[in-house]
Order: sequence, then C-alpha cells, then structure tokens
Amino acid sequence: MKEQIEKYFDRLWPLNRSLTGNGNRETLKILSEIADIKITEIPSGTECFDWTVPPEWNVKEAWIKDSIGNIIADFRVNNLHLLGYSEKFSGHLNLNELKEHLYSLPEQPEVIPYLTSYYKKRWGFCISHNQLINLKEGTYEVLIDSELDKDGSMTIGESILEGDTDEEILLSTYICHPSMANNELSGPLIASFIYKKLKEKKYRRYTYRILFVPETIGSIYYLSKYGEHLKKKMAAGFVITCAGDKGNFTYKRSRSGKSVADRASELILKETEKNFNIEDFFPTGSDERQYCSPGFNLPVGSLMRTRYGKYKEYHTSADNKEFISFKAMEESVYKYLEILDLIENNFTYINRLPYCEPQLGKRGLYPTLGSQKDTAEFVNALMWVLNLTDGSNDLIDISDRSSIPVKVMIKAAEELLSNGLIEIKSESMKLQ
Amino acid sequence: MKEQIEKYFDRLWPLNRSLTGNGNRETLKILSEIADIKITEIPSGTECFDWTVPPEWNVKEAWIKDSIGNIIADFRVNNLHLLGYSEKFSGHLNLNELKEHLYSLPEQPEVIPYLTSYYKKRWGFCISHNQLINLKEGTYEVLIDSELDKDGSMTIGESILEGDTDEEILLSTYICHPSMANNELSGPLIASFIYKKLKEKKYRRYTYRILFVPETIGSIYYLSKYGEHLKKKMAAGFVITCAGDKGNFTYKRSRSGKSVADRASELILKETEKNFNIEDFFPTGSDERQYCSPGFNLPVGSLMRTRYGKYKEYHTSADNKEFISFKAMEESVYKYLEILDLIENNFTYINRLPYCEPQLGKRGLYPTLGSQKDTAEFVNALMWVLNLTDGSNDLIDISDRSSIPVKVMIKAAEELLSNGLIEIKSESMKLQ
Amino acid sequence: MKEQIEKYFDRLWPLNRSLTGNGNRETLKILSEIADIKITEIPSGTECFDWTVPPEWNVKEAWIKDSIGNIIADFRVNNLHLLGYSEKFSGHLNLNELKEHLYSLPEQPEVIPYLTSYYKKRWGFCISHNQLINLKEGTYEVLIDSELDKDGSMTIGESILEGDTDEEILLSTYICHPSMANNELSGPLIASFIYKKLKEKKYRRYTYRILFVPETIGSIYYLSKYGEHLKKKMAAGFVITCAGDKGNFTYKRSRSGKSVADRASELILKETEKNFNIEDFFPTGSDERQYCSPGFNLPVGSLMRTRYGKYKEYHTSADNKEFISFKAMEESVYKYLEILDLIENNFTYINRLPYCEPQLGKRGLYPTLGSQKDTAEFVNALMWVLNLTDGSNDLIDISDRSSIPVKVMIKAAEELLSNGLIEIKSESMKLQ
Repeated sequence: MKEQIEKYFDRLWPLNRSLTGNGNRETLKILSEIADIKITEIPSGTECFDWTVPPEWNVKEAWIKDSIGNIIADFRVNNLHLLGYSEKFSGHLNLNELKEHLYSLPEQPEVIPYLTSYYKKRWGFCISHNQLINLKEGTYEVLIDSELDKDGSMTIGESILEGDTDEEILLSTYICHPSMANNELSGPLIASFIYKKLKEKKYRRYTYRILFVPETIGSIYYLSKYGEHLKKKMAAGFVITCAGDKGNFTYKRSRSGKSVADRASELILKETEKNFNIEDFFPTGSDERQYCSPGFNLPVGSLMRTRYGKYKEYHTSADNKEFISFKAMEESVYKYLEILDLIENNFTYINRLPYCEPQLGKRGLYPTLGSQKDTAEFVNALMWVLNLTDGSNDLIDISDRSSIPVKVMIKAAEELLSNGLIEIKSESMKLQ
Repeated sequence: MKEQIEKYFDRLWPLNRSLTGNGNRETLKILSEIADIKITEIPSGTECFDWTVPPEWNVKEAWIKDSIGNIIADFRVNNLHLLGYSEKFSGHLNLNELKEHLYSLPEQPEVIPYLTSYYKKRWGFCISHNQLINLKEGTYEVLIDSELDKDGSMTIGESILEGDTDEEILLSTYICHPSMANNELSGPLIASFIYKKLKEKKYRRYTYRILFVPETIGSIYYLSKYGEHLKKKMAAGFVITCAGDKGNFTYKRSRSGKSVADRASELILKETEKNFNIEDFFPTGSDERQYCSPGFNLPVGSLMRTRYGKYKEYHTSADNKEFISFKAMEESVYKYLEILDLIENNFTYINRLPYCEPQLGKRGLYPTLGSQKDTAEFVNALMWVLNLTDGSNDLIDISDRSSIPVKVMIKAAEELLSNGLIEIKSESMKLQ
Repeated sequence: MKEQIEKYFDRLWPLNRSLTGNGNRETLKILSEIADIKITEIPSGTECFDWTVPPEWNVKEAWIKDSIGNIIADFRVNNLHLLGYSEKFSGHLNLNELKEHLYSLPEQPEVIPYLTSYYKKRWGFCISHNQLINLKEGTYEVLIDSELDKDGSMTIGESILEGDTDEEILLSTYICHPSMANNELSGPLIASFIYKKLKEKKYRRYTYRILFVPETIGSIYYLSKYGEHLKKKMAAGFVITCAGDKGNFTYKRSRSGKSVADRASELILKETEKNFNIEDFFPTGSDERQYCSPGFNLPVGSLMRTRYGKYKEYHTSADNKEFISFKAMEESVYKYLEILDLIENNFTYINRLPYCEPQLGKRGLYPTLGSQKDTAEFVNALMWVLNLTDGSNDLIDISDRSSIPVKVMIKAAEELLSNGLIEIKSESMKLQ
C-alpha cells in the first residue's frame, strides 16, 4: 500500500488547496480514484451557524521581483510563498513598503512559514527569514493575479459506506492546506485508503461517513446540515490529521473522555504499541473543535502521530516529503482499521444463564481433565465474559478489567454467543 | 486450639474426598465433633441450573504392578495416585498403552499431580515425572475397583447459628479434594473452629450459615435451593480456602469490590498486618465464582493466605502437612473472627443532635480542663462519629476517613449510643 | 497596612479575652475603629442547642506570693498565668496544696501554658515548668479576685457588608484567647482589615457576614439564631485563625471537600504559592466544627498559615509578637481577598451559540492572520470557556481543566459576556 500512497502523494503535493478553489476540486478528483467520493459545491455566501462560506479563491500567478528582475518569491515554485487568500495586487514598492507584506519566522530562519488571511482582505508573501534579512534597498515589483469570487463555491467531498445498521462512524479529514505533507496530505490519503479497505469487508456493522472538507468552515457547514442526524446516529468519530510522520502514535480524547472512540483507541494502543501518548481533549486543534462543541458534544477523538503544534516543521515548508514516511502512513491506516474493527466487534452482551456458571465442559468449552494447575487464557476469557455480561459492560470494559487481550475476549464472546450462552443487549433491554 | 486442629487434620488427611462418596461422609462426620453439622444427601441426577449431580464415586482399590509384581502406584498409599472419578478397569497393558493413562508434572518431577475427570468417563493414574520416565518396557497389570453409582448421592454439610436478626453471614468451604492440606483441609477445619467460637458468643447480631460442600457442583446445588433467600438476607460472605500455609494473608474482593465483606477485611488487615495482599475479584478460583455469578452477585470475598495457583505445591502431593502450619491456621481462625466481629459491630448511626456539637463535657466525655494542646484519640473518635453520622457512613467508613483504629471508633460509638447522642439507622430511615 | 496592623496588635495584646467579660468588649471596641462592628450582648444563661451561655467572667487581680512576699505569678504581668474562668479564691497554702492548682508543660519547660476551665468550677495558675520545679517548701499566699456573674452576658461582634445579591460569604474569627498572637489576634485583625478592604470595593456580588465570637459557644449561639438562614444563603465561608506566623499557607477543606470555598482556595494557592498544604476536613479544630456539623454542613473551610496544633508555641506564652510577622499577616489579608475576589468572579456561564465555534475573528477576538503556529493564551482561554460553558462547569472548573490561570479565564469570560456569546446561568436554568 505504501507505494500507492506515495504515488498519490506526489500527484497531490503541488496543488494549491485552500478553503475553496480549483486546487480542492482537483484534490478530490484524484482521491476519487481511491475512494468513492461524492463531490458537492456549496455556494459562497451560504450561511452556517455563525459563519458564512467565503468567496472562492483562485490564483493564476504571484511573484516578487527585485529591481534587476531577479525572482524573490514565486507562487509557482512554492505555493506557501503566497499568503493564503491574498487579494489581487500589482505595483512597485520600496523595501520598507514591501516588508509590510512579508512574513517570515525569525526562530526558524531557513523555512517558509504558512499563513492565511481568510476573513480579512490582505495580500502578502511568506519567505524564509534568511531571505528577508538579505533583501537590499531598492524598488520591487509585485504581481498577484488572484480572484476572490463571491459567486464561486466551496468544494467538499463525502463518502458513505453503508453498514448493517444505520449507526454511524465518522472519519473527518481536511483539504485546505497547500503543499504540506504531515499536516495535510497524510489526512486525506489515510482516510481514502481506510475507505478502500473498509469497502473490501464483507460485513460492516456500522455505516461509515468519511468527510473531506476544508478545516473549520467545512465541518461547520457540514454540521449545520447534518449535525442533528449525527447526534442521533454517531457511535464514534475520528479526525484524521498529522498521521504520516515517523513519531509515536498520539490519541487525543473526545470531549467526554470516555466515548467508545476513546476507549477503543486507548485499548488498541495499550495492547499494540510500546510508546504512545494520550492527550485529554482541548478545544483548540482541528475539526474536533466543531464536532465537540457543547451543542453537539459528539464522540470524536483523533489518532495522530506527532500532534499539530508539537513538531517544529508544523505549518512551514519543512513539513514536506522528507519529514514523513509512507511506511508510517500505511501503519496509520492499519492502526485506524484495528480500532474500527474493535468498535465493530464491541458489543454489550447479556448472560442468558446468569445464575452460577453454565457447564462449559459439556459444550466442549472447558477441559474435561479437571483440576489442572493453570487455566488457559481462552477459558479465562470465557469466564470473564460470563461474569461481567450483566448489561453494564461491553467487551472493551471486560478486556480492561481482566487485562486479557481484547481479540481473545472477542473470540470468547463469539464462542459463547454461538452456544446460546450470551446474547447481544437489545435496545429494549437498554431502556430497562 | 492449634493442637486440636492438628489432631483433626491427622484423622481427616487419609480420607478419599471427591465430589461424592464415603470419604465425604466420613469427613463431615469427623467435623461434626467440632461443629453442629446437618448432613444432607442430594441424589445423583438432581438437576441444578445448568448442571446435574454426578453419580456417586467410591473406590475399593486401585493399583499398577509391573511384570514382576512390583507396585508402581497404589491408591491406598496415596489417594492422589488415582485420577479422580476413574471408572472401573482391569487388564494388562504394555508401557505405551499404559502411558496414555498416566499423568505427571514434568516441571515438578518429584511430585504426584492432582487431577480429576468428573464429567468425562476416563481412568488414569497420577505419578511423579521421575517415576514415569524410569518405567521400563514390559507388561503392566492395572486394577481399578471403583464404582460410579447413578443411584448414589452427593453429601453436603450445613451449620446454621441463629443470631438476633435474620440477616446472614455466609462462610463456605469445600470438601472434595483427597489428601491435600492447604487447598482442602485448611478450609473445613478453619470453618469448623470459627463455628465453635461463634457458638460460644453470648450475642450474635447476624445469623451464620456455614457450608461444607464439594466445590462447584455443591455450591451450585445450594444456590439452586437457597440462592434467592441468600440474595435477600446475606450481609456478607466468605469462601474459606488456602488459609493454612505460612504465607501472608491475601484478601480477594467480592465482585462489587466494596461490599462490607471487602471493607471490613481490608480495614482489619490494614490495622493488624504489616504485609498482606489485596486482589480484585476475578471469575476463576473457588466457589466465589458461583456466589458472584451475575445473577446472584452476592457480597462474597475470600480471606486466604497464599492464594490457590500462587504456590508451586498447589494441586500436588507436596501440598501436605509439612507445607502448612497449625499455628498459622489458628491465626486464620482468629483473623476471620476479628473480621466477623467488626461486621457485627459495624452500624450506620444517626446523630440525634446534629446541629453543632453536643456538649460532651457535661456528659463526662470531654476534658473539663480546656484548651489542652493535644486531643486524646478517644475524644477525636467521638468527634468523628458525631460529625459523620449523617446516615451515609458506617463505622468502617468513619475509621477509614479518620485513620483512627476501628476498635476505638466502635467504643466511641457505643459511648455516644449509651448517652443517647446517636441512634442506629433503622430500615425506615434507609428508605428515605 | 502592616504598620497599622502592628499598632492595633499592641493595643489588643494585653486585654484579657475569654468567653465573656470586659476584655472582649474592649477588644471589639478597638476593632470597631477598623471595621463597622455591631456589638451584641447575649445574656448568661441563654440556651442554644445543647449549650448554655456561661456566667460572665471578670478578673480584678490574681497572684501568688511566697512566704517572704515575692510574687510567683501575677495576672497583671501575664494574663496566661491565671487558669481561664478561675473562681474567686484567697488563702494560704503549703507547697503541696498549691501544686494541685498549678499547671505547667514539662516538655516545654520555659513557657507558660494556656489552660481554661469554662464548664467546671476550678481555680488555678499556669506557670513555666522551670519555675514550678524551683518552688521551695513554705507557705504561699494566693489571691484571685474574680467574678462569675450569672446576670452578665457574652459579647459578640458582627459586621454585615451588603452586596448585590443576598447570597452570603461568611468570615468567622474568635475573640476568646488572652495574650496570644497567632492563635488569637491574627484572626480578628485579619478579619477586620479584610472588612476594610471589601468595604472600599465599588461592587460586591455577595453580602459579607463577618463574625467576631468567642470560640465554640459563640458560633453555637450564632448558629442557633441564624443557622437556617445561613443554610439557605451561604455560598462560601472561612474560619480565620492562625494566619499571622511566618509559615506556608495551609488550607483546611470544608466537610464536603469540594465546596466553592475549597476549590477557590486551592486554585489560588496552586497558582500563587510555591509551597502550601491542603488538609482534608477533620472535626476537631476551631469553629468549622460547628459550621460543618452534620445538621448544617455549611461550605466553611479555613485558610491558615501554620495550623493550630502544628507549632510548638501553640497555646503557650511563646505564641507572642516575636512568633508572628506583620508582613505575613498583611499577606494573609491579601490572600483572603484574592480568594474572595475569585469567588465573586466565579460564574457558571452558558454558551449562547453552542453549535460549533462562534466566529471570533469578526468580533475582533481572534487573529485575522490565520494558521499561526501558536495560539495565544487568551485565545485559548476564550476557546475553553466556549467549549465548557454547558452549564455544568464554573470558571474554577474550566481553569482547573485547562491549567490556564483563572485571572485570564475571568477576563476571557468577561470578553465573551460583553460580546453576547455567553450568559450567566440563571436560577431557572439551574432547575432544568
């Protein structure tokens, strides 16, 4: 899979993604080769809660030349050079006038920073601090051939994979950063390959909803349309971002801190990873800010590797192909699949013979040679499931309490289910 | 007491206990010299929940001889040699044929393992691994003169000590292992001597129910008969097992983890023992598996010394008189009595003058010489009881929160009770 | 402020305070120069709950002379010499007879202990142990010219500062110890200066009730009169004592352990002090014993420095001016004010736009230059407030969860409030 991921990465890398524009359309078109993405255009000016979809932004060219015609910064060479959502401009400025429109990072003088001005009209260029301090006095020529079209639209992508039930799992990722690797392309690529793998499954208990939206305004629009539906139907959700670097996994909890998304992710990390980080929810970050706003409070966490803001390459030109690893990205796909698989198999069962133990021996589930010194892990798992299936524990709880790997616990539960000793707790039981 | 325990131990040791049979009858008869045990026969074939009482098993003789007549294993020498519930057999076999019926423990080559086959018809012998590997080719003669009688019965013993109320404390132990010391005889011996001591008490708040039953099938039968009664009446319960060795005390919690059995045991251990172990409930082990099955969920824990499965002599011929200590067994009796005594004295009181402190000085409960630098522990205890007796704390809670020894707390409460400053919370108060 | 505190300290020091008497009247008169204190006389014999206001005690003179007329102990030199509430006595005694009326502290032989006999008629003198053991055989003359007047009264002081609401904050301190510094004068002095500072405030959300009462009987009397009112109206309360020494702050929690008094005090200490102690509630100590009795269970904690009983000078003549620090006392005033200020500002808010984030940028609350690497603490605080104002968290909770200083949190909330993004949770909302 990792070779395929790299191939798509290389095609997606140069596109100028932003809140809106042709770069986003092209991105979704390429991702559609991996996943079945329904692409929708939301007109600029559409109101959603406290927000309005902005004009569509497209850029033809943008550059700065010095007095002798040397190119100082060119959008075609690196789209980070242009401040996101820069308005049209052309003119000649002296160095001081130009500097008011230049952005750099003094503490990381080698890299081009990534900056935007979505909701205030500005123009500007981002360059390395080393380049900035070496600019000489003189007259500079600036051209920004961009368009902010009030009759344009915002482009979003959505993939729905129907499952056996209409309870849903949400995977949300964003498509609004230009050429950056971990904090942009890892997200939509991992989401697309998860889709591809989920589609291959013969049985899915849950319906999967995978969103490719510009950050903030995209998820806010989506929640304004489908938020009430998601409140009713969502079992778990994840924001997929920053999952392509070589660091350990990080799981950021949902607002409640104990949703099934949280419990499943933490159990899988505990059982499969030597080093990993768990972070409590905090209300800055990515689109979990919207999903976990108090009016929705959806069970949405985020499995990342090195979290946004925690690595120095974040939001700079150094968040590039060298910084990431396609092997790590493939592993992230499988880690997500492992968590989703656990959620699929995580039932709350009810013991149908709750008075004393059922006689497992006569069902071939217990050794007929009695009084052995050790109990096999699988027999232990059977006992734990039988003992704790009183309706207040799901398999994750039982695995947590017993310290028996959850895969063994799932197998034990399946064995007991097929022997009629437990049954899945039904909605009507839940109401009791 | 320990000399007496040893005397009974020596008489009980050689008997061939199992799920059923004359060894069990004889065991209960001997224990009846210590405690008033009502012996009941439950017919083979009796159904209880998912189980059926097995045929009665008795053995006349059982041995293996080699081709020159040397005895290889003889039930009369050590009843562990015979696989429990072996069916009748006689015949001549070569070494390979014989080996299919021989059981040994390669990792402990010196000892005879203890094994059974209660619910699948088999015959077999258990021998040390050293003996097994030294057996020579040749013809072996085997005789097992045993009987599995479908018209027999399972024998259980029950002692009831009436108390002031019909709320009950259950003590359950098992009588189904042949010649083993810690994991068999420590249980029924300690239970019998606890009975003897409880009977001597002038006042018992609780009714005591002490059970001597074969493990698993015995407690399941009993619960099928009295489970609903126990659910209504049981205040606390304990499975008595593995309490005769020289190790530190171990308390295994009941399923809820915070029953009065748990809280009392942990407080007594904390106050009286330097080293001890607390284990959370797990659904393997002894008869707490049945008492704590989800349909019953009774408040049954287990005070042991070295827990079953935690010592290498467990379920082997090395669990013998040398492994145990009669002094330790006597101490276990008194430790149980101390816990039971705490439960007897553990009331939830209500402060009758809850507005400000009552004036203790005029009742002789507070020093008349005021403003002294230190407060005596007993005065402290009076203050704690008065402050926390709002109906949500019993004396164990108050002792836990204050770190004042519970015996001081009990004395303080009795003093306040006799001064009319507190009263016992009544059932009608509980309903409020 | 500390010079002023010292000036008042010096005037208050020599007065003979006790449960009753002219020393208390004089003390309240002097404190009235700082705070507006309403002085009330409660007749001796007044019944309150289980207690009775004692006779009024006044002392003209009290001394012991040896056979050649040397003064051994004189009440005028140090009022600790006289056992509190000593009855009238005059006579000649030999050394053995005298010793029955002498109290000393063998473990601290240099100091005069402080002792009382409020509710049992006695007379006695307290002297240093060094002095005691050097007393020679001979005849001693004793004079105690004291009066226990059944027609007298107990004097209490009360300052009420009206606030915007009738919800109250209680500050309670005591005026019943004679010449002691930390464990007496620090309390009423700090309380008076807090009053002075609170009175200067333009706006007070809460009504403040500051009590100057003799310990135990004073607060019991007050609760017998106003306890039901306080149960309805009290938001938080503090017993002010032992807050004038040079030690670290100690906060003793209220009975519930999580009242707003507790949460505010602990947060302020955590944010402003490097070293401090938190102690769980215990039912001995000062008047929190009465406020936190189970019938009232008021949210009353106590901010001290070195807690009573924790320093060797406690209840001796060594608890004097040298032991304390007026700088520390001034800091204690400001620490209390800081805690009270937090309680004043600690609202439970409701997010009025709870579905997704409101667009802060258009309100000037979010940087218009987007995608910056770091989020400013204030923006973070805005986000935390918006995310957690679902009605179940107050600002202390939000500061605790976010680890953002509560002053920043208060500013953020005020900003959001003035922008109409949040509102104060009303009583009617609380009922939902």
